[in-house]
Amino acid sequence: MAYKVLDSRKAYVGKLVTVTVDTVEMPDGKKAVRETVIRGKNAAAVLPIDNDGKIILVRQYRHAYKEMLLEIPAGVLEEGEEPEQGVLRELNEETGKIAEKLTYICTLYPTVGYCKEEIALYLAENLKNGKQNLDPEEFIEIERYTPKEAVEMIYRGEIRDAKTVAAIFAYEMGHK
Amino acid sequence: MAYKVLDSRKAYVGKLVTVTVDTVEMPDGKKAVRETVIRGKNAAAVLPIDNDGKIILVRQYRHAYKEMLLEIPAGVLEEGEEPEQGVLRELNEETGKIAEKLTYICTLYPTVGYCKEEIALYLAENLKNGKQNLDPEEFIEIERYTPKEAVEMIYRGEIRDAKTVAAIFAYEMGHK
Repeated sequence: MAYKVLDSRKAYVGKLVTVTVDTVEMPDGKKAVRETVIRGKNAAAVLPIDNDGKIILVRQYRHAYKEMLLEIPAGVLEEGEEPEQGVLRELNEETGKIAEKLTYICTLYPTVGYCKEEIALYLAENLKNGKQNLDPEEFIEIERYTPKEAVEMIYRGEIRDAKTVAAIFAYEMGHK
Repeated sequence: MAYKVLDSRKAYVGKLVTVTVDTVEMPDGKKAVRETVIRGKNAAAVLPIDNDGKIILVRQYRHAYKEMLLEIPAGVLEEGEEPEQGVLRELNEETGKIAEKLTYICTLYPTVGYCKEEIALYLAENLKNGKQNLDPEEFIEIERYTPKEAVEMIYRGEIRDAKTVAAIFAYEMGHK
């Protein structure tokens, strides 16, 4: 079931996001206004397990939080790029690793209340060394933790990024 | 480490979100522009386990996806409300349940790339019946699944909301 859209307008068009303000008709016939943030592109993210069984995380500055956050490698898909390709490219660019085994975990809607975007989540294993190749705007530090350490870091609030938390819990839960 | 903010302006001020466009100085001295969606309020969400061991989920229309999505009960915190209070209130309003045991799981940043918002995640057990009390704009259906069924639904793409996926994986992983 989808609500009927009575009116839709673009309230803001930015570089990264567009905000739409729609008037919808609810099941009881009443009208409601829905403000939605739309990111034009989808993303993919990957939990890489190195050959010592450790999780490879990247720490980078996130301006929304004004903090250096720990995350799994991730990025926006390029035009026409499949999630599998995109995630292998991001893994290589951000960590220098090439994955010989890639397993799909699930797809996430990060902020269902008002943002439209989806993130495909993968597990990467059997890693080989390639060459790190960061975007000019990326300043990234690599950190490695055992799955047990990573879970403890989530509980202590040191890892908060939702895609990263979901991927670590999935791995610890036994996703293969 | 935080990047130095050289300039900050509000590019859009909506009902739910504000978009800021900031110019920041990166570690190499170069400038970059950061567009950020800011939601004024934080949220809390709760995985309720009923007395049969089933997870209680709510299905509701989410306009950003134009789909009826399955989620754990959640909501925005009211002014001055602690996350524990807010989450018990939302659980009661959306499902009619009163929880006698509430356990903190972790805090999530849903969309680190460009949205500022946080969600405190809880587990609710020892549920008693109260009275459902929906907001006038809420049309919600209650569904119940075993933890095993919920994990399978994530893998099949039937549950995609990130806070819900993180909470179900945390529970299945053995969070107590």
